Amino acid sequence: MISLHFLDLTLFQTLIEILATLAFGLSGLLEAARKKLDAVGVVVVAGLAAFGGGTMRDILLDRRPFFWMQHATWLWGLLALCVLAMFFMRARHFELTERAMLWPDAIGLGLFSASGTQIALSMHMPEIVAVLMGVITAVVGGVLRDIVCNEIPRAFKDHSPYAVCAFIGTWVMVLAPQLGMSDNLSLILSATLVTLLRALSLLLGFQLPEWNTTRQKSE
Amino acid sequence: MISLHFLDLTLFQTLIEILATLAFGLSGLLEAARKKLDAVGVVVVAGLAAFGGGTMRDILLDRRPFFWMQHATWLWGLLALCVLAMFFMRARHFELTERAMLWPDAIGLGLFSASGTQIALSMHMPEIVAVLMGVITAVVGGVLRDIVCNEIPRAFKDHSPYAVCAFIGTWVMVLAPQLGMSDNLSLILSATLVTLLRALSLLLGFQLPEWNTTRQKSE
Amino acid sequence: MISLHFLDLTLFQTLIEILATLAFGLSGLLEAARKKLDAVGVVVVAGLAAFGGGTMRDILLDRRPFFWMQHATWLWGLLALCVLAMFFMRARHFELTERAMLWPDAIGLGLFSASGTQIALSMHMPEIVAVLMGVITAVVGGVLRDIVCNEIPRAFKDHSPYAVCAFIGTWVMVLAPQLGMSDNLSLILSATLVTLLRALSLLLGFQLPEWNTTRQKSE
Repeated sequence: MISLHFLDLTLFQTLIEILATLAFGLSGLLEAARKKLDAVGVVVVAGLAAFGGGTMRDILLDRRPFFWMQHATWLWGLLALCVLAMFFMRARHFELTERAMLWPDAIGLGLFSASGTQIALSMHMPEIVAVLMGVITAVVGGVLRDIVCNEIPRAFKDHSPYAVCAFIGTWVMVLAPQLGMSDNLSLILSATLVTLLRALSLLLGFQLPEWNTTRQKSE
Repeated sequence: MISLHFLDLTLFQTLIEILATLAFGLSGLLEAARKKLDAVGVVVVAGLAAFGGGTMRDILLDRRPFFWMQHATWLWGLLALCVLAMFFMRARHFELTERAMLWPDAIGLGLFSASGTQIALSMHMPEIVAVLMGVITAVVGGVLRDIVCNEIPRAFKDHSPYAVCAFIGTWVMVLAPQLGMSDNLSLILSATLVTLLRALSLLLGFQLPEWNTTRQKSE
Repeated sequence: MISLHFLDLTLFQTLIEILATLAFGLSGLLEAARKKLDAVGVVVVAGLAAFGGGTMRDILLDRRPFFWMQHATWLWGLLALCVLAMFFMRARHFELTERAMLWPDAIGLGLFSASGTQIALSMHMPEIVAVLMGVITAVVGGVLRDIVCNEIPRAFKDHSPYAVCAFIGTWVMVLAPQLGMSDNLSLILSATLVTLLRALSLLLGFQLPEWNTTRQKSE
């Protein structure tokens, strides 16, 4: 995931961001552990989940250097996270961690999709492309995590709105500056909206439509 | 897939091209529906199938902007296609659609492989690389579609010649200009040959060789 | 995989390199055959295994042209290898080939990880990024091979140290030049260390740690 380092980051913002990247990385770590990958697999899948989305966005936008190349400390941080987790985390902690991570993950979804959209807009991409880049920033990490673990990506299958929240909320990042709002304010509004939509989806159990082939077959 | 927008497109050509991209997108849409993906998954897999091949070719050739970034209307078209399909398409339409799409798909195979080869040639790639780029343009969309749906790509497993038709026919795009033919004529010849080869493969039931490990084991 | 063409290659070095790329390609060929892919699938998976790692590194480093674009003869070589193998290799040869390939594969692991690290260093990447690029050069080909064949990548699951050997040994490539050693000597030392570590892992049956969830559940 991309840092919001182009903003004048206060300590508070930095903390949120670290927490969000941690949530993304931990989601990879837990899936790798469940699939009984070895230590290398755990590190790789955690890294893909944490940095895969921002990297994919930067490849598509032809933007270099990647966040993790410029701030290589994050790679050490990821390694440390994995080593610590392998030493201290027990199977009985898994479900607990996963539930505790839902909220930082929702914050990450908002933060990374809004900032991804802003980056694409600053490169003069068409609006729908900018929104798509925001969604990719926030979602592709989890998609790569699931593909490497030989699963159909959760974001495409579990019917809980996730990418859709990012798709809706990042339009604020596109439209608000056209109404005269500052970029920073738009970013905060957009990220908050995405996070709220995700939180509501989780709390109220929203479900995405699926192709109801069963009912239709029995017609 | 890439548009042939560098040609002076007549209405007829544009229609063929839209039909071919539609066929690629629908193949993704149907596979996503069969795998019971949710609405997000349906859109993503349809998009990968439609635009994945041309995007992969452009990443490998370091060519920007991508077709769908430059002509963002296509992204809206894809969204509209998916919404319409989810509203109106029933399970009993699936097989019918798949069979009806075989011919636009064969045309797409020809069109996109020939134009992918032409693009690589115009960037002075070696002949075998240009042919490979043509094949990638036409085939990688379906490969990504199958990987995301957690299947071994159909193009590598179903023994019906597909990539091979593109591999053979795009050599016309490489060799005809060396015999003095114009680029446009070469493109049309090459695309037609690929499509014909694919059509013949389907009509006559050609089969690619497989490693006959069973027979060999009993030696 | 990348050629060491920037060194003044002696015949001996070239032979080693060809042998190593062959080993990588054959690993793809064998997995494709076992999965009963058709001829197209065999060629593609062999190609991904042989060239995928170096290509991924070059995409991440934004480095062009790719090795196989510049030296297109290797693509013909790969095609020839696959055709020959399909004609002459029998199922009873598979296991034998796989065991015989373990040693060239270990040499390839050393050679390609050390040279990948050197390339990243020459582009002034941070040390941990350079090491990561070395590991990616050597390992990603096999990872893509396994993903296309719908398997969890062996490098992440089989607990035999592989990526770890590259991760450790390529630090020599990073540190030795800082101690005043020439780049070429560092490369040879680093590649040798990686290969030795891999050989020792195989001979002594080293195992990477796994998350022992079973034991922990019974606590």
